[in-house]
Amino acid sequence: MSLDTPWALPITALAEATRAGRLSPVDLLDAYLDRIAALDGRYHAYVHLSQAARQAAEDAQREIAAGGWRGPLHGIPIAVKDNYTTADMPTRAGSALADADHPLRDGAAVARLRAAGAVLIGKTRMHEFAWGMETPPARNPWDDARTPGGSSGGSGAAVAAGLAAAALGSDTGGSIRIPAALCGAVGLKPTFGLIGRSGIIPHSWSLDTAGPLASSVADAAILVAAMAGPDSDDPAASGRTCDDFEAALAAGAGGMRVGVCRNHFFEALQPDVEAAVERQIERLAAAGADIVEFEIAELAHGLGAIFAIELSSSTAYHAGRIEAGTTAQMQPDVQLLVEMGRLVTGPDYIQAERFRRRLCERFAEAFEAVDVVVGPTTPLTAWRSGETSVELGGRTESALAASWRFTYPWNLIGAPAISIPCDLDRQGLPIGLQIAGAPFDEASVIRCAAALEAANGFPPRAPAA
Amino acid sequence: MSLDTPWALPITALAEATRAGRLSPVDLLDAYLDRIAALDGRYHAYVHLSQAARQAAEDAQREIAAGGWRGPLHGIPIAVKDNYTTADMPTRAGSALADADHPLRDGAAVARLRAAGAVLIGKTRMHEFAWGMETPPARNPWDDARTPGGSSGGSGAAVAAGLAAAALGSDTGGSIRIPAALCGAVGLKPTFGLIGRSGIIPHSWSLDTAGPLASSVADAAILVAAMAGPDSDDPAASGRTCDDFEAALAAGAGGMRVGVCRNHFFEALQPDVEAAVERQIERLAAAGADIVEFEIAELAHGLGAIFAIELSSSTAYHAGRIEAGTTAQMQPDVQLLVEMGRLVTGPDYIQAERFRRRLCERFAEAFEAVDVVVGPTTPLTAWRSGETSVELGGRTESALAASWRFTYPWNLIGAPAISIPCDLDRQGLPIGLQIAGAPFDEASVIRCAAALEAANGFPPRAPAA
Repeated sequence: MSLDTPWALPITALAEATRAGRLSPVDLLDAYLDRIAALDGRYHAYVHLSQAARQAAEDAQREIAAGGWRGPLHGIPIAVKDNYTTADMPTRAGSALADADHPLRDGAAVARLRAAGAVLIGKTRMHEFAWGMETPPARNPWDDARTPGGSSGGSGAAVAAGLAAAALGSDTGGSIRIPAALCGAVGLKPTFGLIGRSGIIPHSWSLDTAGPLASSVADAAILVAAMAGPDSDDPAASGRTCDDFEAALAAGAGGMRVGVCRNHFFEALQPDVEAAVERQIERLAAAGADIVEFEIAELAHGLGAIFAIELSSSTAYHAGRIEAGTTAQMQPDVQLLVEMGRLVTGPDYIQAERFRRRLCERFAEAFEAVDVVVGPTTPLTAWRSGETSVELGGRTESALAASWRFTYPWNLIGAPAISIPCDLDRQGLPIGLQIAGAPFDEASVIRCAAALEAANGFPPRAPAA
Repeated sequence: MSLDTPWALPITALAEATRAGRLSPVDLLDAYLDRIAALDGRYHAYVHLSQAARQAAEDAQREIAAGGWRGPLHGIPIAVKDNYTTADMPTRAGSALADADHPLRDGAAVARLRAAGAVLIGKTRMHEFAWGMETPPARNPWDDARTPGGSSGGSGAAVAAGLAAAALGSDTGGSIRIPAALCGAVGLKPTFGLIGRSGIIPHSWSLDTAGPLASSVADAAILVAAMAGPDSDDPAASGRTCDDFEAALAAGAGGMRVGVCRNHFFEALQPDVEAAVERQIERLAAAGADIVEFEIAELAHGLGAIFAIELSSSTAYHAGRIEAGTTAQMQPDVQLLVEMGRLVTGPDYIQAERFRRRLCERFAEAFEAVDVVVGPTTPLTAWRSGETSVELGGRTESALAASWRFTYPWNLIGAPAISIPCDLDRQGLPIGLQIAGAPFDEASVIRCAAALEAANGFPPRAPAA
């Protein structure tokens, strides 16, 4: 990899070259735009390309040339999921609804990226209103007959195909980590409340989390650190900031207490996924980590809880559309879910929230004994586009239900979780390893992920792309 | 009033006499027990009298005689609402349900009272499961054809009739302040989370608040200070403690910024109540307080929000009974409300919580300009027992709906609010003034209430009793 194919490089390498004047932000933008022109007809990662990106790249180029380098994102093209409002690009949250146009205004995370000098290159395709795991018609750069996952599927495809240096996603039950796992990208869902969500079209107020998909752990860490911070327009924003994770990225896994939760997270998964994850655990042990196995019985009841919360929230958000009858303009799968929340009762919702508190308590106990918890991100690798059900562990399951089984527990407890590509299955499709930590302990998650990434040597982009 | 009629004295006076050895806790207990024997056949304030109270009084007497006075509650008989579990008395939350017996165990607030040396004299009658404002068959000591209010009606009647030095209540939408207002007692609902609720039978987890009914502001302040503090078994406990409020009790109202919220809190109320409250506002102005009028338009939507939350919570708590069909053993009004929560949807519940946050924000803004907000506690004085609807402002309204109109907003925002008796209506029935403050600013509430109490000179007990 060299500056001749800058789209194949991580942000850390691009930043070094850009800062030193060896790579111009305008040339870098053009490299991505050329690639998008060549490849996005296959992957459908983008729904909009910015008309303002060139000016931003020129500004960055001039500033850097004048000695005003702002940091590792300065002049770097970043794609934005279509549910973040932006001042210079339309936002429709993946919907064709007549009233789905949102204000042209940067929210907190986007504003922070611009302030860091990032060049926002375009908006990526998403499953409508973030309510699905397939993102049609987007395709997976590892095999374009397959789905990139969802709901941030366009972001996953864009990163995997080298159509952006990194991309923003959002994660309510797994929507960053699932496409990351299926596309061989790194996806980091930080702690609930670390990144302010003003300007992000709500799906579920108490679960929605902003975060990046990137081609390396360090890149994801840079983006989280850039976007974290107070947001007066998001009542759930913690107000915390975080440092640059440099120490965590370099620390290695030696001495870490690595938890493996043996129930729930290892049930009904593809054999190749299981074997790959076990090899990762062995690799951590070999690197000097202490492996601590445990179980959390309450996980058996998590699916009902997240469904009650997510369905209720989605229906509450779309209540006006349900009343007006315009939900009929949604895709049928999304319409069904949006309307189904009316069947969840208030008492159901309260029981779900009470369950959630118990789950938080159980995991808080677990995190007294471990620094991180590792397991598969998804029980399966990328399925064929259009397949709605999959066969796993001898049972047939909807693709949606299967894909988020291992990711949603971390949304319920608001904890940070990353997916890193760790291996390929027998079909050559990437397998994701999920590493989660205690709330606001992104550092441990990043430390463990970076250590494995260095050992794994997984390619930063899909070879097919 | 003298030590010949100790039941007519506030705790502050009883404590002074007890500490000095002029009044023995055993004699004091006997004075109340005699009075209960003589009067409780009329008021039905108690459902149970403690068999352990005499031993507690004797212990207190011995300790005090030996120089071990613990503080103002040492040896003082306090009644406990029937929804606080107690180690030495049964707890049924006012229900005849076969499975309504609760464990014999002190919760946090009761344990703190015992540690302070209080003598728990008995359990007071309550509206079944705290879901009503009438507490049958309890009667009002000011007119025994009338209700003491609810749900802490037995506690209100006990205090007003001098059947206990003070009594514990619980307040989800007004259940301390309404009986206090109707019975001419002081009722203090502290900030949500100030007093731990372990051992209190849940009605609505996010609203339920423990607190005292007493015959003076100082007494109520003593009880709140004694009960406040951490409670590891109540996830909503703030862990805060509070000091003894001595400075607040003595400070007077001069210089206070007294808010009057002119919408909602002054709508459809009895003319005598309105006139009495206006006189109280004038009295505060005359004492040197700054009167600041304001409006909060969002209050128009508060009723739907608290109903959605309270109905959902109650139904969730009683879900097993609904499934088993045992709710048919409840009183019909309570059964209806407990089962009705099934009709609240999860989206409704979420909208209610979102509204609640907006209301919190509006009041937080208001409390930047004022220290307290004053108004009527209830729009009406005690109605006749058995009357289910009342006439107010030219419209017919259910007694339940009317009675909590002015109290529930403070539950929605979790703020402290006190009701003090301030006058009598043309029928000789007590009128309650409500004084609320910002969350955790009990001190301002107590300061304003104590200043008015001193100016009003309202009798500490019902003259009829």
